[in-house]
Amino acid sequence: MDSCVAVAMAARRYDLACLHLDYGQLTEPREHKAFHDIADFYRVPAARRLVLRADHFARIGGSSLTDRSMPIPEADLSRRGVPSTYVPFRNATILAMAVSWAEVIGAKRIFIGALEEDGSGYPDCRGVFIEAFNRAAALGTRRGAGIRVVAPLLRATKADVVRRGVRLGAPFYLTWSCYASNGPEACGVCDSCALRLRGFREAGVPDPIPSRSH
Amino acid sequence: MDSCVAVAMAARRYDLACLHLDYGQLTEPREHKAFHDIADFYRVPAARRLVLRADHFARIGGSSLTDRSMPIPEADLSRRGVPSTYVPFRNATILAMAVSWAEVIGAKRIFIGALEEDGSGYPDCRGVFIEAFNRAAALGTRRGAGIRVVAPLLRATKADVVRRGVRLGAPFYLTWSCYASNGPEACGVCDSCALRLRGFREAGVPDPIPSRSH
Repeated sequence: MDSCVAVAMAARRYDLACLHLDYGQLTEPREHKAFHDIADFYRVPAARRLVLRADHFARIGGSSLTDRSMPIPEADLSRRGVPSTYVPFRNATILAMAVSWAEVIGAKRIFIGALEEDGSGYPDCRGVFIEAFNRAAALGTRRGAGIRVVAPLLRATKADVVRRGVRLGAPFYLTWSCYASNGPEACGVCDSCALRLRGFREAGVPDPIPSRSH
Repeated sequence: MDSCVAVAMAARRYDLACLHLDYGQLTEPREHKAFHDIADFYRVPAARRLVLRADHFARIGGSSLTDRSMPIPEADLSRRGVPSTYVPFRNATILAMAVSWAEVIGAKRIFIGALEEDGSGYPDCRGVFIEAFNRAAALGTRRGAGIRVVAPLLRATKADVVRRGVRLGAPFYLTWSCYASNGPEACGVCDSCALRLRGFREAGVPDPIPSRSH
């Protein structure tokens, strides 16, 4: 849902090119479908869609999202610290791939739906990380490439994301947030479901995606 | 040869874990062999070797190293600017993968054999890039991960690399630098061969790898 609203925001000002990363997460089949559904919704041509695979997260392990022997924990939104669903330094790889693509196609802005304040406690979703990454991107690409990562939801709560999405007509019914299920229903109990459901509840908007235990 | 000397330097102070990236470069078969030969030489156990694949560079294109329709240019060491062999923002992806792995296995230092002063003019081989990347790595990983990229050859010339390698007993006979050939001889005329051959010549050391046009 965060990525979808980021796309909706980008679509107001830019021609879109959409990148999806299959990094061996449990819910890749469902996320892959969501990616194309949302790209279809925004009429992104096939030549401007890139689905990449990175098997190293699954091979390296260390996260319950990619390691089949680790359970996806049930939500505990008052928990402090980095949860087991953290995929080590994942956003750096995704953003590095996006910068490589941007440099080739001449794109100047990379939108990412990272939430810092109401997020999952992942270090690579914080504004200070994005800022530092931007400096690395400016220095590690050709002079004049002018590529910058934009994280327009960094300071938003999940309820803000819902409200902005509704305002922009973002197709929430095409999104997928659940860490544990590939559909048709979301599990309703993982961290990502809990954050999503709380956001919709606080915004007073019904979530169009059905949840098993909700 | 730069990676090999970086390994030799790391081996003096640390237990080694070695990462190789197959990113669809023309000379992957030969580089893959060199990776394992060098890891064998330094007795790196299989569990501490990681060979990753990233097909996105080949799919994104934009570099003569990965795009089969672009010729590998002959060397011109006086040329200014970024050569066609530059793979857009490649080192950021390699380093991001290395940081992910380091975070899981608890490694603290990542050695990279990047040369700035006597390098190929790639923006992602510069010290300012490595520094900015290190800041992103510190901020994008768990608190206390303490991972830092070290580029011990940044200020070295190729001749320095040869001299240091000789001093440390680095197995140059197992290395591969050529951009164009998968062996048994190097082409001798691409940028990477030209830099290598000049380095050995200036250091007054014979290159143990045979070159076709040398």
